[in-house]
Amino acid sequence: MTNKTTISAARDGLLFTPGPLTTSRTVKQAMLQDLGSRDTLFLEAVQDIRQRLLRVADLSADDYTTVLMQGSGTFGIESVIGSVIPPAGKLLAVTNGAYGRRIEQIARVLRIDYCAVSDPEDAPSDLDQVRQALADDPAITHIAAVHCETTSGLINPIEAIGSIANAAGKTFIVDAMSSFGAIPLDIAAAGIDYLISSANKCIEGVPGFAFVLARRDTLVATEGWARSLSLDLLAQWRELERSRQFRFTPPTHTLLAFRQALLELEAEGGVVGRAARYRANYATLIAGMRALGFQEYLQPERQSYIITSFVYPNHPRFDFATFYALLHDRGYIIYPGKVGNADCFRIGTIGRIFEADVRGLLGAIQATLEEMGVALTPVLEA
Amino acid sequence: MTNKTTISAARDGLLFTPGPLTTSRTVKQAMLQDLGSRDTLFLEAVQDIRQRLLRVADLSADDYTTVLMQGSGTFGIESVIGSVIPPAGKLLAVTNGAYGRRIEQIARVLRIDYCAVSDPEDAPSDLDQVRQALADDPAITHIAAVHCETTSGLINPIEAIGSIANAAGKTFIVDAMSSFGAIPLDIAAAGIDYLISSANKCIEGVPGFAFVLARRDTLVATEGWARSLSLDLLAQWRELERSRQFRFTPPTHTLLAFRQALLELEAEGGVVGRAARYRANYATLIAGMRALGFQEYLQPERQSYIITSFVYPNHPRFDFATFYALLHDRGYIIYPGKVGNADCFRIGTIGRIFEADVRGLLGAIQATLEEMGVALTPVLEA
Repeated sequence: MTNKTTISAARDGLLFTPGPLTTSRTVKQAMLQDLGSRDTLFLEAVQDIRQRLLRVADLSADDYTTVLMQGSGTFGIESVIGSVIPPAGKLLAVTNGAYGRRIEQIARVLRIDYCAVSDPEDAPSDLDQVRQALADDPAITHIAAVHCETTSGLINPIEAIGSIANAAGKTFIVDAMSSFGAIPLDIAAAGIDYLISSANKCIEGVPGFAFVLARRDTLVATEGWARSLSLDLLAQWRELERSRQFRFTPPTHTLLAFRQALLELEAEGGVVGRAARYRANYATLIAGMRALGFQEYLQPERQSYIITSFVYPNHPRFDFATFYALLHDRGYIIYPGKVGNADCFRIGTIGRIFEADVRGLLGAIQATLEEMGVALTPVLEA
Repeated sequence: MTNKTTISAARDGLLFTPGPLTTSRTVKQAMLQDLGSRDTLFLEAVQDIRQRLLRVADLSADDYTTVLMQGSGTFGIESVIGSVIPPAGKLLAVTNGAYGRRIEQIARVLRIDYCAVSDPEDAPSDLDQVRQALADDPAITHIAAVHCETTSGLINPIEAIGSIANAAGKTFIVDAMSSFGAIPLDIAAAGIDYLISSANKCIEGVPGFAFVLARRDTLVATEGWARSLSLDLLAQWRELERSRQFRFTPPTHTLLAFRQALLELEAEGGVVGRAARYRANYATLIAGMRALGFQEYLQPERQSYIITSFVYPNHPRFDFATFYALLHDRGYIIYPGKVGNADCFRIGTIGRIFEADVRGLLGAIQATLEEMGVALTPVLEA
């Protein structure tokens, strides 16, 4: 404990997690200002954020608009699920992990009619199943899917699911929490009506709000459907449009940090530039982890460069809690696993981290394995 | 516009608002650290915050507990209203302003049965009306009231409403958003089951979450009643108790700022010390504003020292938008009015501001009136 506190005071640990992430010093410094939530300077920042998000997404302001919602990413998902499905609507959730199942859970709690097509956590969503579900149940009005399943690190075929949704005339909702800003996606071409992400993911802001990119004509048709006051997506949008203000107190400091994060994303070359850095982080991580004797949970072609699940090595002295704590003492924070059918831990490659940091992590992992007396055999390339 | 930006770059404007407020430099600096949301250092901070809040409230951990909820204060209110009233329950809202009416609005959106006793915005809640409503309608199970109505600045007789609620065996919910931490209140003696406040009010943190002080035995009896996943109060509490973690990503930086704010509250002498500073701010403000020719909206004995509504002066050259903008240029941010039956603006006396700052504001108001050509007659003491 004393040791941990000392290290933390000396330097912040680097976060190899799915978020909150390591952010730049300048993003955090943007929070050293108290602005009034109804003051012009703040309202201009909010407006700027909403416009820049459309530019990051390469969307036309004629067709799409941005809604910011206080709370975590899940608050943003619940805001969409609870606001845009009519009383007689029915949701099809396409799931292969905890975040897909969370969408089902939201529908259940909100008493929204729903059904699901589920795949194993190591398999991308099956398109035939989606087509079949739509054919079997004409009551379905909305389809929700997860772009990058943070549970495993898997990438789902969002464009293909979007084609099916569009051909069938269904509204398409995408949880792009951990992919938006780092995995190129043509949102309009994929027929996405609502895309949700949050401040503390690949834009590299700090946590405190979620955002929704919404097709204007779909959004304005949802009047009267919201099942919450706080999480009413349409009311939130109307007030942001009318007065540039939030209906209820916004996290002003978090928003100032986010504006700075958007500027830094643009300076890095936008989504393409950021993707290149994350890809390099990922390539360095995978090569290094295999050399150290760790095997990924997913097949490489299904794997995102956002976060990777590694299977616990089969060695009697490997213990995750010890491994985590020793890495923590060395200033590297990794993440526990979340898949149901294998013992895994996860390492994120997003946030303000670079290849040199990944090499630092690999060195710390090597030293930790030695300290634990865990000798592993390198995993050969597939 | 250029002028405003320049001033802002030179020094932050001082916020005389109901929040977000001016916070200390050290509170903001606590946000210059990225901690993992599941990491020990962060979980210890969360635990520390929950315990310190009980101490600020002078509550025993045997009887009461703390729940933190992402989002604004309204998210916290909706979390309580939506989670603790059973399907067959009925809410009595005691209202005399926008925040009381917001509780009604939440009940309406969530389809919770409710009724209300309403008083004018310049009159404290009428206790006979509350007694009568309970006598008239035995279906009422819960009573909700607002301690300090930010709409006007009025203080409601919370202890007396609590006595009535307790004598009738009703669950008592208090919106103490803008009073908690600065207006002494014996929560247990007042029979309060749930008290809600938020990070960016009198504790002087930054916005991003709300907190609920809840009577343990009342809270644990609410299983299965939540009408939202994100805003499920009992589930949030259970996870904080079980693992010290939030169920969904917490605003880590905001929480670190809040812990620092709690330390600074204790250093100031707790609620009593803070109340003394705010009272002095208020006394200086009222004396100065009367001397400048401004009249308060409320009778002094109904008025809190948190925020004060001033009636627009009856002068042809007084225009609030101009007045606001000129004060803004001088580095002082005030707040528009919100009462329905009079043209008012509001001045808050909370946050990291001192008597010298209030005198600075008064000087800026005097200079602004001169610039506008508004000559007023001093208001005599009552």
